[in-house]
Amino acid sequence: MRIMRGRFFLQCDVVVTADLNDLRARIDQVDDELVDVLTRRAQLTAAVGAWKSRHRLPLYVPEREAQLLAARRAKAAAAGVDPALMEDVLRRIMRESYSSQEADFSAAGDLARPVVIVGGNGALGRCLGSFFIRSGYTLRVLDKDDWGKAPSLLANAGLVLVAVPIEHTCALIARLPQLPPDCILADVTSIKQAPLRAMLAVHAGPVVGLHPMFGPDVKSLAKQVVAVCPGRDAERCRWLLEQLTIWGAVLREEQAEHHDRAMELIQAMRHLTSMAYGIFLQRQHADLSELMRLSSPIYRLELAMVGRLFAQSPQLYVDIIMAAKGLPRLLEQYRDVLDGLFKRVRERQRTELIEDFNGASAYFGDLAPALLRESGELLRKAHDARDPLTG
Amino acid sequence: MRIMRGRFFLQCDVVVTADLNDLRARIDQVDDELVDVLTRRAQLTAAVGAWKSRHRLPLYVPEREAQLLAARRAKAAAAGVDPALMEDVLRRIMRESYSSQEADFSAAGDLARPVVIVGGNGALGRCLGSFFIRSGYTLRVLDKDDWGKAPSLLANAGLVLVAVPIEHTCALIARLPQLPPDCILADVTSIKQAPLRAMLAVHAGPVVGLHPMFGPDVKSLAKQVVAVCPGRDAERCRWLLEQLTIWGAVLREEQAEHHDRAMELIQAMRHLTSMAYGIFLQRQHADLSELMRLSSPIYRLELAMVGRLFAQSPQLYVDIIMAAKGLPRLLEQYRDVLDGLFKRVRERQRTELIEDFNGASAYFGDLAPALLRESGELLRKAHDARDPLTG
Repeated sequence: MRIMRGRFFLQCDVVVTADLNDLRARIDQVDDELVDVLTRRAQLTAAVGAWKSRHRLPLYVPEREAQLLAARRAKAAAAGVDPALMEDVLRRIMRESYSSQEADFSAAGDLARPVVIVGGNGALGRCLGSFFIRSGYTLRVLDKDDWGKAPSLLANAGLVLVAVPIEHTCALIARLPQLPPDCILADVTSIKQAPLRAMLAVHAGPVVGLHPMFGPDVKSLAKQVVAVCPGRDAERCRWLLEQLTIWGAVLREEQAEHHDRAMELIQAMRHLTSMAYGIFLQRQHADLSELMRLSSPIYRLELAMVGRLFAQSPQLYVDIIMAAKGLPRLLEQYRDVLDGLFKRVRERQRTELIEDFNGASAYFGDLAPALLRESGELLRKAHDARDPLTG
Repeated sequence: MRIMRGRFFLQCDVVVTADLNDLRARIDQVDDELVDVLTRRAQLTAAVGAWKSRHRLPLYVPEREAQLLAARRAKAAAAGVDPALMEDVLRRIMRESYSSQEADFSAAGDLARPVVIVGGNGALGRCLGSFFIRSGYTLRVLDKDDWGKAPSLLANAGLVLVAVPIEHTCALIARLPQLPPDCILADVTSIKQAPLRAMLAVHAGPVVGLHPMFGPDVKSLAKQVVAVCPGRDAERCRWLLEQLTIWGAVLREEQAEHHDRAMELIQAMRHLTSMAYGIFLQRQHADLSELMRLSSPIYRLELAMVGRLFAQSPQLYVDIIMAAKGLPRLLEQYRDVLDGLFKRVRERQRTELIEDFNGASAYFGDLAPALLRESGELLRKAHDARDPLTG
């Protein structure tokens, strides 16, 4: 592979005249102003964050954000700037302001009662723990070696949050000693039925199942979705949900059974088929750097969705796969579909393959063009970030 | 599903004081300045575009862009602004300036010789045709019903570019009448060996196979990759490659055989497995709106990669699948991998599944964490754009 551009334009630098240099100098000046605008905006949003924290207001208010974006789009359009450009730039700036708001968050619960995170030294446990600390709670961690002192760690707890690997969740919940009657028992496992049953069995007080739909690497909970499966005594669970909202999260109430069925498709099946594709490429001895080089943004992203899996914890993914009780049935059905398509390809049944395709198009309906637009916009952003000099 | 935030903070608007309103008014002012900066920058980059066009310089110069970004990152850092924020904002602005440069492009070829696009009314044909027109070429289209007048359409052509569906490419190339001896014959099919053979057989003059690695919806060719498979007489093909470079494209020279093998993995296998997943969801009668609601950005993107397929042309995808000669063999191997994993799941072989995972991790090597970072950054951008009020 060679980048072939160079050989046509070796003379570029020579022919650059004062004209172009003058234009570039003026772009430099405008970009300096841009840095200045970004700096001042960051100072102002930090002040808003501090104000919100003092007044116990949520970090993220969807209506305010939507309103602000609509107003700015209108102003941009009036000035001849593409409103989509203005919105993209503002959203990117807003991410920064959400994640850099260093002001402490206010507390919705009783700060005299400690928060205990079971598995608090794990990645998600540490992530959530840091938010409790920033809101002023006393945080206690109950990890592998702490079970001997569990009763004293749990004394007077206002919340016990279970954040351990899926395969240990139910067993560890069952091991919990008696909790204060009004203490919330909650978990953050990516399946919800079994942990909820275990929590309801071990604790007679308030119980709620949570599934944070994000990884432990987030710097801010703004706009992050948390699925909430009610267990018992919603009224007493309320401060915890309010706390998540103060941190910026968006809560979605779901039935545990519904949630788990959806997750088998959303998580377990996708992980397994991505894993299969990665192992398939390995068996092919495919030259990954060649695949990357020849991939347009869309294929590069598809390869990334497979490859990213293998930079993460095998235990985590294998546990998600193993915990999905319906997976063998789903896999069997997926293989049937694949076999059907395989037959079409082998027997060159072009018309039938088009019919299969059209059947799925009808099922996806309006969502297909919506997903095409959404992913198209994201691919344009991926393309923005591309540097053909390095890959 | 309900968004639960509302019920905790109904009183928000009441407690907003002059303080917060004042801060928000000042953010408004800063955003007005931002609109102004964007307007002025767009005017300057348009002037640069016009200057480059006059001087026949390429629209996109990777070194200049890299240099500019490095300088701006440094300035941002000095001012206390996250350099990554500055770079993201600038790259987004640059996209706009590339695609809005309305100035006509200069021509690298002989404007007295017409460019003929076979299939010029198709999506990609129209897209490429518009660039030739903007550079001042006389564009002729040879479409389905034009074969009767093909000899007159092709008279004196400097370039004949074949842009028809894969399954017709070779047959239509074979139908071409004699071309002027120095006319370039080129194609833009996503496979390269067979079309190249067909072109070399029908025309004794310069031949080159191109594979534009982008869709017909691009507004600018800046940074878009075009794979180039040389056929015959590279010297006389040169102006066409130079022309692509003037439009901003990045050329990658590849051997046709290599290219096609990579594309079987990059395109055909991915399309087929995505199609299989879509049909699988259809057979499950999965509630797509529920899946979307419960999907974090990563799963939403995975669903989008499947769903977007079904908003596009079944013929196009089925033809890519059918044209991949090695696909049956690849599919068989993929199914073997899937069966192996299926067995692990059914027989609860957790340790072995982790070993399978680790094997693929070793194969992906350093690329896995790189892809995790790259896709992580893209997912943060997807999250920026998220509006939990609407989905």
